[in-house]
Amino acid sequence: MQNRKVVLYISMSLDGFIATKDDDLSWLSVVEKEGLDYGYANMMERCDTYIVGSRTYTVVLGLTGGDFPQANMFDCYVITQKEIPSTNGITFYNGDLKTLIQSLRSKNGKDIYCDGGSQIVKLLMDDNLIDEYIISVIPIFLGEGIRLFKGSSLQTSLKLLNSEKFETGLVQLHYERIINQ
Amino acid sequence: MQNRKVVLYISMSLDGFIATKDDDLSWLSVVEKEGLDYGYANMMERCDTYIVGSRTYTVVLGLTGGDFPQANMFDCYVITQKEIPSTNGITFYNGDLKTLIQSLRSKNGKDIYCDGGSQIVKLLMDDNLIDEYIISVIPIFLGEGIRLFKGSSLQTSLKLLNSEKFETGLVQLHYERIINQ
Repeated sequence: MQNRKVVLYISMSLDGFIATKDDDLSWLSVVEKEGLDYGYANMMERCDTYIVGSRTYTVVLGLTGGDFPQANMFDCYVITQKEIPSTNGITFYNGDLKTLIQSLRSKNGKDIYCDGGSQIVKLLMDDNLIDEYIISVIPIFLGEGIRLFKGSSLQTSLKLLNSEKFETGLVQLHYERIINQ
Repeated sequence: MQNRKVVLYISMSLDGFIATKDDDLSWLSVVEKEGLDYGYANMMERCDTYIVGSRTYTVVLGLTGGDFPQANMFDCYVITQKEIPSTNGITFYNGDLKTLIQSLRSKNGKDIYCDGGSQIVKLLMDDNLIDEYIISVIPIFLGEGIRLFKGSSLQTSLKLLNSEKFETGLVQLHYERIINQ
């Protein structure tokens, strides 16, 4: 088994939402500033594989007008319940998520970037499959929307690796999961 | 109108809970360390008034064996739906929360410390009555419990005033509400 880590790298509002009810992400613009990539280049450096849920994938396609830029940077897996042929470097995966992670970890490679959404995060967390959490807290209350953490029966201890604040008001929290002995 | 600010000063797990389902707070012990008060002394200095919901009040009484230490430090208001005579420096208030805040702000005094719980936070947020948020993020996923932010129809912009990380893994986020023009 290789030591390829699964890293959740995602933004949430202070009240814990990753998107509004209608999948709007325009509120993220409050932290957009030239020269600030909030560690994205580092994610591209450390990861070679990208996992995302089909709903988030569809939102990205809507924003870009059909392009999926991550496909040029990573080996991409879109988790879906449908059967869709793989295309342009994107694998549409409708199998068991744990099996996929185990399969990826059995091969040599860099770390695995998980971009959400909340359904994928829940499935991964319920099986203790996320090793690191890099969460960018955006200075806004959305009030309602899609919660990053939908809830789980598991309690998980974390170790803070770093916390960094930016001039835009974004605070990035970086934790690793503590493996229960 | 005096410029007395309402300050929410509270801890939450990274997944946004302030207590487990059965009001357990023992998970907060992971950040207890001698010499670290996470700004509590500063809250005692800047505030002279304390507001808390009746459920949180009851939890504190259970932890202390019937004592309510805040009553020795602040002018205390316990928000309740019952009619309870005031006692030992604690006012049991069953009126409208907005009226209470307006009444406090009309008098001279220091800032107002809100200690939760989530029902009081929601009522205050729905009327834009919280001026500052000091949130200590505890390095743990509780998975389930009582959410700090129950949801609201309001979207609120925040300004990050500070973010501080501690050796225990606690990160304290400090925001002020941006007043819409």
